[in-house]
Amino acid sequence: MLTQYYTPTKVLFGEDAEMHAGEQLKAAGARKVLVHYGSGSAVKSGLLDKVTSQLDKEGIPYVLLGGVKPNPRLSLVYEGIELGKKENVDWILAVGGGSVIDSAKAIGYGIYNPGDVWDFYSSKRKPAGSLPIGVILTLSATGSEMSDSSVISNEDGGLKRGYNSDLCRPAFALLNPVLTYTVSPYQTSCGTADIMMHTMERFFHAGKGLELTDNLSMSLIRTVMENGRKALDNPEDYEARANLMWASSLSHNGLMQTGNDQRGDWSCHQMEHELSGLFDVAHGAGLAAIWGSWARHVYKTDSARFALFGEGVFGFSRSGNDEADALRTIEAMEDYFRSISMPVNMKELGIDPTDEEIETLTEKATFFGKRTLGSFMTLEREDIKAIYLAAR
Amino acid sequence: MLTQYYTPTKVLFGEDAEMHAGEQLKAAGARKVLVHYGSGSAVKSGLLDKVTSQLDKEGIPYVLLGGVKPNPRLSLVYEGIELGKKENVDWILAVGGGSVIDSAKAIGYGIYNPGDVWDFYSSKRKPAGSLPIGVILTLSATGSEMSDSSVISNEDGGLKRGYNSDLCRPAFALLNPVLTYTVSPYQTSCGTADIMMHTMERFFHAGKGLELTDNLSMSLIRTVMENGRKALDNPEDYEARANLMWASSLSHNGLMQTGNDQRGDWSCHQMEHELSGLFDVAHGAGLAAIWGSWARHVYKTDSARFALFGEGVFGFSRSGNDEADALRTIEAMEDYFRSISMPVNMKELGIDPTDEEIETLTEKATFFGKRTLGSFMTLEREDIKAIYLAAR
Repeated sequence: MLTQYYTPTKVLFGEDAEMHAGEQLKAAGARKVLVHYGSGSAVKSGLLDKVTSQLDKEGIPYVLLGGVKPNPRLSLVYEGIELGKKENVDWILAVGGGSVIDSAKAIGYGIYNPGDVWDFYSSKRKPAGSLPIGVILTLSATGSEMSDSSVISNEDGGLKRGYNSDLCRPAFALLNPVLTYTVSPYQTSCGTADIMMHTMERFFHAGKGLELTDNLSMSLIRTVMENGRKALDNPEDYEARANLMWASSLSHNGLMQTGNDQRGDWSCHQMEHELSGLFDVAHGAGLAAIWGSWARHVYKTDSARFALFGEGVFGFSRSGNDEADALRTIEAMEDYFRSISMPVNMKELGIDPTDEEIETLTEKATFFGKRTLGSFMTLEREDIKAIYLAAR
Repeated sequence: MLTQYYTPTKVLFGEDAEMHAGEQLKAAGARKVLVHYGSGSAVKSGLLDKVTSQLDKEGIPYVLLGGVKPNPRLSLVYEGIELGKKENVDWILAVGGGSVIDSAKAIGYGIYNPGDVWDFYSSKRKPAGSLPIGVILTLSATGSEMSDSSVISNEDGGLKRGYNSDLCRPAFALLNPVLTYTVSPYQTSCGTADIMMHTMERFFHAGKGLELTDNLSMSLIRTVMENGRKALDNPEDYEARANLMWASSLSHNGLMQTGNDQRGDWSCHQMEHELSGLFDVAHGAGLAAIWGSWARHVYKTDSARFALFGEGVFGFSRSGNDEADALRTIEAMEDYFRSISMPVNMKELGIDPTDEEIETLTEKATFFGKRTLGSFMTLEREDIKAIYLAAR
């Protein structure tokens, strides 16, 4: 098959990267910028001041819109679109993590295109373009700083939906690992799990993986696992934070699927979206809570692939019994998740869905009977329900 | 320090990728295209017909310019610039390997900017822009399909000079591994060596490498070594050709240096440029012929890095004696080169420079006393001469 690799985002990585925002916007000819950020830490840390000083220095007018929460809300997106249109902004600068960037992408679609922006997320129609977006990253996790992806939560119905398009790949991303020193241990673990899962969702797919892509994927996951632990041990370990930050971008920019037979599986992501749509849990933790149950449900479809993963990531020797090797690999991954205080089921995640809620999750995950999930193994309604139940 | 990763090239990889040239040029609004190619195989294989049919179908006018030779000549570049200006082309489509792409990049600079294009290659001035370039790749080696690099040979003085700028990164690259089935065993080996060296030049630098970048680099080299051998054993092994092709792009697009303290060493490349400038040898073979002598001259500067490389690429256990491990690694790499029929010295490369020619090579490599080489260890004139002599 034909695969596409397209990552036009200009990345500046390392020392004082965030101090190049004004210069990048100036060079791109920005006339007015919507500076979008989260719930206060960008202000408290002085980062926002650093940003606005640069814009002042370059003589670029701007408006501010803060208040993005994890699982970014459609209501704030609407507010940003209204503000951006009123102020006639032609660029958006996202200062924060994945939620801020995803919110900025949605606002970018909404300003550029007439009509309701939720139409794109609910697959009703496609956008014709988007405002250009710059990023100053403060959290290593979602990879939204280079990805084509944006995920928004609609409070009306508790729906969390993603929309993917090359139109929203950021024009530039400024990555300074020092800005992630203050990320809490819990969020560091959630980020580590999220980064790993972006590559794991791509690694476990039907058909063949290009050997180079497989090997780069397993190298990345191994490196992330080691450095996630190091960042927990010492939050100001520059090397650890740098490895997590760059891995965050590479894990979701398309590199880890190029040449593969398929774009990935993504059923854990889709099942987690319903979980955090309903219970507002952290995305990375939700993924960790589901993965083991998914893996046990599907591994017999291609146990050799799980065994290869165990060899490349954990250094296990192949025993000749792929199913046994696969199970050993799944257990080792759950052990790793536990070692960084990530949950491996919903109880550990702190939620306890009723039978009725399991039905609701299942129903929503199938888009109310309109789709199956996954490619490694195609998951029908009953498979999805069984995985939710096993993960409870 | 701050590093940049910028790879805007849209890559289509896999089945019938070459059949998307017309569609890509149409979408980009190309008005007239210079189709640039090599010395006949693109014609004989029918590839050129496939390209012109697409342009005819899309109604895009074009002019043809073939005849690019390995170590592409400045004289043909001048011819292309004249033709392109006369015909008022606004796009270049390179159909071939690194020499064709590099020649196309030079023509792109020359059409866009007034004055002598050689000025850019001889560091006299910088270009303001370039024509956009599309690529249909037929040889996995130089990585020019995504890189910022172009190397041209000036017949006047036997000078081979490179110029690097983001301006010349191709807009799109169409990568179909099947198009490399007919690459000869010798060119397959040269390509394998070239791909490996693009990452090795970056791996061996002063200062620290980002662990993720180190690990991805060693994974890539290991994968290339295996698949180079497989492609020699079976030239129509799709998987082997696909791994080499994608590795070619990733090895030189900047991925393998992001987050590192420096952009790389590059002294082997610079010494090889003089070698092929004077003797017109194949670039990949020239690199292999020099690398061992370079490595033995410099390894004591940071033998731990060579030992790490041996561990990551050859799976050697660390003995505790880094210098011994480094020497073992250098020998293993030379053994690998021999195993794919690559030379590890100039005799095996088929040349036998006189003492006077060694002086000339040395003099030219220093840009006539104006520069040192390398960053892993800074090479003065006497170091360069010693390496040339050791490689003789």
